[in-house]
Amino acid sequence: MTNWPYNTPGIPDSMFIRGKVPMTKEEIRAVSISKLRILEKDIILDIGAGTGSLSIEASLQAKKGQVYSIERKEEGINLIKENIKKFNVCNIKPIKGIAPIDLENISTVDKAILGGSGGKMREIIIWLSKNLNKNGRIVINTITIENLYKAMKYLKENNFKDIELTQIGVSKGKDLANLTMLKANNPIYIISADKGR
Amino acid sequence: MTNWPYNTPGIPDSMFIRGKVPMTKEEIRAVSISKLRILEKDIILDIGAGTGSLSIEASLQAKKGQVYSIERKEEGINLIKENIKKFNVCNIKPIKGIAPIDLENISTVDKAILGGSGGKMREIIIWLSKNLNKNGRIVINTITIENLYKAMKYLKENNFKDIELTQIGVSKGKDLANLTMLKANNPIYIISADKGR
Amino acid sequence: MTNWPYNTPGIPDSMFIRGKVPMTKEEIRAVSISKLRILEKDIILDIGAGTGSLSIEASLQAKKGQVYSIERKEEGINLIKENIKKFNVCNIKPIKGIAPIDLENISTVDKAILGGSGGKMREIIIWLSKNLNKNGRIVINTITIENLYKAMKYLKENNFKDIELTQIGVSKGKDLANLTMLKANNPIYIISADKGR
Amino acid sequence: MTNWPYNTPGIPDSMFIRGKVPMTKEEIRAVSISKLRILEKDIILDIGAGTGSLSIEASLQAKKGQVYSIERKEEGINLIKENIKKFNVCNIKPIKGIAPIDLENISTVDKAILGGSGGKMREIIIWLSKNLNKNGRIVINTITIENLYKAMKYLKENNFKDIELTQIGVSKGKDLANLTMLKANNPIYIISADKGR
Repeated sequence: MTNWPYNTPGIPDSMFIRGKVPMTKEEIRAVSISKLRILEKDIILDIGAGTGSLSIEASLQAKKGQVYSIERKEEGINLIKENIKKFNVCNIKPIKGIAPIDLENISTVDKAILGGSGGKMREIIIWLSKNLNKNGRIVINTITIENLYKAMKYLKENNFKDIELTQIGVSKGKDLANLTMLKANNPIYIISADKGR
Repeated sequence: MTNWPYNTPGIPDSMFIRGKVPMTKEEIRAVSISKLRILEKDIILDIGAGTGSLSIEASLQAKKGQVYSIERKEEGINLIKENIKKFNVCNIKPIKGIAPIDLENISTVDKAILGGSGGKMREIIIWLSKNLNKNGRIVINTITIENLYKAMKYLKENNFKDIELTQIGVSKGKDLANLTMLKANNPIYIISADKGR
Repeated sequence: MTNWPYNTPGIPDSMFIRGKVPMTKEEIRAVSISKLRILEKDIILDIGAGTGSLSIEASLQAKKGQVYSIERKEEGINLIKENIKKFNVCNIKPIKGIAPIDLENISTVDKAILGGSGGKMREIIIWLSKNLNKNGRIVINTITIENLYKAMKYLKENNFKDIELTQIGVSKGKDLANLTMLKANNPIYIISADKGR
Repeated sequence: MTNWPYNTPGIPDSMFIRGKVPMTKEEIRAVSISKLRILEKDIILDIGAGTGSLSIEASLQAKKGQVYSIERKEEGINLIKENIKKFNVCNIKPIKGIAPIDLENISTVDKAILGGSGGKMREIIIWLSKNLNKNGRIVINTITIENLYKAMKYLKENNFKDIELTQIGVSKGKDLANLTMLKANNPIYIISADKGR
């Protein structure tokens, strides 16, 4: 895969520079980005951006837009910068900080993806209910049943529409003495919603 | 969702004109298209195109390329034409016929997606091993364990590389007396591979 | 399967008299009963017993014990009685009513299985925290994320120990034109716990 | 769980002596044993017995029957013996060897469970088609798609009836900073069938 073209949607996990930071797997990335329904000029917020893998994929769809990647850890910010460089994208801006308190310089956004809430699910959803543009969309990825419960609850309370829950279980083939076993990834909950009008 | 922008990747199932033809669901569509790693000028073959939902999503990525949608049923061909019109895409050509025997006018392609093999898994894979361009990729969707077994076997026999098997189980939230139950879609196997060089 | 021996654990779904009442499927029944770790003389409470399928399987393990099957619907009570007759078990007592308010005549139990909480998850768990014997166990089956969240929360609050969450996704082979497709059942959450000492 | 009663069906994984030998997980064990529909006097064959966990559970149902546990590895045979001792069961006989060639001293059996075929799926199924008693049942556990395909094929070819395929995906709750994430076990295929009459 040496000459795999970097600026194409559908980047395999192995292409990202990752360190030890947990990364959204490629199938979940594909579905999450798909559910954002990104337009070319969208302003996108990636909260808890980690390695920046979702930001990179989003930036390939929002070619004339802008992606803000919020991440609290120095290690993550550095990985995001390295991946920006590797994939040669110019519309991602990494922001070291915690959502929503460090979002003060961002006015409104079209799409938001929440990969890590840092215990601030309620505050983030309230902030987004105010700062998402008309036709704005939110996609939340979570692996815990408590954050799943809270995401559903706070989205309803803050008048988000078309709230959709998707649980995805991915298993990958793995060679086992010339046979193919299935190796399971942990199931992920993807919650998507439209901003209420 | 009346003013949802049609020409954006990530089309929800409900937007397609479907009739009674079975349709690849949106999450599977997103992952399958993602694994094709489509370039803007790609020539793409959609075999067993059904409603054309995969063709439409592929055409949104291959904006300057071409999608050939092979479908054996009249009903399917009509649905593909209706969806082409609805989503206003101009780079899809529906072909009524059976793969690979009715592919005689197509020389080489960059990417192929196989949603229905019509019992011709072996012949189709052999045809693709000859007619896929360098850097070509194939994505096969199947729900049966026999076609899964055969796809893996014939891809290996015909020197495809980086053969990857992904099983995806999707469950969708559904309102049940103000509670949210999970409703399972049937699991799908997605097999992707690179053309050998 | 006409001469299948009724008094053996592992009863297939098709053997139960069901009507239109939803029934716990056989794989979920096997795992749930297994997690109860039933002893021969156990007193068992089956709350929201439905068709009685869990009660019947429990009664085959608690051969010298007693099963109380609480069900609020007349239709369910009748099905439980019919299944008791069909499987010829004599240690199940159906109780028409709502838990926990209609459990007044039951003092203590060894094991409890909760297939339907009827919106009384908290009250039922509190009742069980008082009325389960030492070494008592509880198994809760739920399909909704809200009841999952509540079950976990109330079990913790009421000092249950070894709280274990298991999500099970079962798919069954189905013939499709001489091929075998997988047909998914909806995923089920099984929560089990020991009574705190 | 120190005083957990050993002679009760539903033994948790943590109770078995395991070494590094792979072990069928408790939920799969429960479903597999359930699908065998064991009678009290059944003669049961556990092929590829590993740690003996399936044998132990089977022996608790076939209280007046006999379990033969075939295992090719010395390490496995030793673990089976240790578990027999720990769970204090007296109706399991470990046999060091390979099925079906080392089954020469066993005439007929009522139930067979196949946890590991050692590349002899076809030979084992043929042997069982001859040596299973009337009303005999077989349960095959496999994690590979090739053995799944072969099991289905050979069971059909050898006139087994009511062939049932079940895929089970189990995820277990795991504490993650006071939240509960789901951790996936690898999916397992369980194939069960009746001996043809």
